[in-house]
Amino acid sequence: MTTPYQLYYWDGLQGRGEFVRLALEEAAAPYVDVARQKKGMPELLACLDGGQVDHPSFAPPVLRAGELLIGQTANILMYLGAKHGLAPRAEAGRLWTNQLQLTITDIVSEVHDTHHPISTNLYYEDQKKEAKARARDFREQRIPKFLDYFEGVVARNPGRGGYAVGSRLTYVDLSLFQLVEGLRYAFPKTMARLEPSYPSLIALRDKVALRPNIAAYVRSKRRIPFNEDCIFRRYPELDK
Amino acid sequence: MTTPYQLYYWDGLQGRGEFVRLALEEAAAPYVDVARQKKGMPELLACLDGGQVDHPSFAPPVLRAGELLIGQTANILMYLGAKHGLAPRAEAGRLWTNQLQLTITDIVSEVHDTHHPISTNLYYEDQKKEAKARARDFREQRIPKFLDYFEGVVARNPGRGGYAVGSRLTYVDLSLFQLVEGLRYAFPKTMARLEPSYPSLIALRDKVALRPNIAAYVRSKRRIPFNEDCIFRRYPELDK
Repeated sequence: MTTPYQLYYWDGLQGRGEFVRLALEEAAAPYVDVARQKKGMPELLACLDGGQVDHPSFAPPVLRAGELLIGQTANILMYLGAKHGLAPRAEAGRLWTNQLQLTITDIVSEVHDTHHPISTNLYYEDQKKEAKARARDFREQRIPKFLDYFEGVVARNPGRGGYAVGSRLTYVDLSLFQLVEGLRYAFPKTMARLEPSYPSLIALRDKVALRPNIAAYVRSKRRIPFNEDCIFRRYPELDK
Repeated sequence: MTTPYQLYYWDGLQGRGEFVRLALEEAAAPYVDVARQKKGMPELLACLDGGQVDHPSFAPPVLRAGELLIGQTANILMYLGAKHGLAPRAEAGRLWTNQLQLTITDIVSEVHDTHHPISTNLYYEDQKKEAKARARDFREQRIPKFLDYFEGVVARNPGRGGYAVGSRLTYVDLSLFQLVEGLRYAFPKTMARLEPSYPSLIALRDKVALRPNIAAYVRSKRRIPFNEDCIFRRYPELDK
């Protein structure tokens, strides 16, 4: 690649953009995080505007790769996975990888709704009571259901190395790392209680954290700290 | 195909399985709707069980295509699109089609949450107040935001024929048909008010409805009527 990728995502939060950043960082692919540059916001907004681009996205993240403008996190990762050896080449493996990523998409969307169960157009403070009820269900029912699933996928993967798919790292492993990190940030008490039940998943998280490119990225200023603008938010009243 | 596809989805509702059924019906692909057969439920449940299948799904729909077992609606459609000429062959077109389908996935998930904003594990009646608040936001903010987007996509598509992508029917067109049908069922007053703003999208819906295989399917007993077990539910108190 001579032209760097351009990643369009809101500045100031990890959000869904972070799943893309982790793949770019692992691949050591050059990229510009456009909205974090001076005057980057109008360029981000142009990606959402059908008057300005042929394939507008409904929402960020968006990745520009040469002539291509690609939206939807799992779609971007499918593209990057194929280009950078972060997904199997054979059809069955590609489909399985994409299926797992879409299931991560599902839980990430549910994480968001723990603090915004009624409307993304209202403040958290205006839906706090409903958020408490939804977060309780999420902690007690949904986190275990999703993590049981991912634990089973990793534990039963016949490939060597403790990955989710086959015997090599894929973008799904990077996303599972981010999912565990995000859940730990937002629901520390819940995760402290649950993690012993997920040894394979946590071992995978640890393995990803030790990869040189990921370790360097997480220590760098390019990694935005978790905060309460993110999908993963630490509101103590939502964790018990 | 000599072996018919096997579709695994809950009996008694259209749900997410319907997006897959529409693609199979348009393609005139032979398929068995497994859970609607006698003793089909254990087979469906096996698809979710990592002890019984190599690639268990978190939830239906699941499609068996020969050796492949594929989960996640958009993933299944990507597979069927490639096999049955329901998606472009070139990379840019495939990615754009998948991106649009994932955006349909997003609104479908939000439709579900209008009647279950707190928990899928509670009855609607136990979260009716919160459902009213969420449905109001959905009607006033989210439906227009998503339909504005899809209207723009269809209206600005430079391909001939009024489709969403290029100059030929894709699985996204079938899913947009189903989205409009579902929204009309669940939110008839809202849709009656909004539809005049979406002439290209509604023309596309009409075009899909007239396709011989789709028209025959919709009239058949294979098409389960909309009902209040579906994602799209007609609760008059949620529509105004």
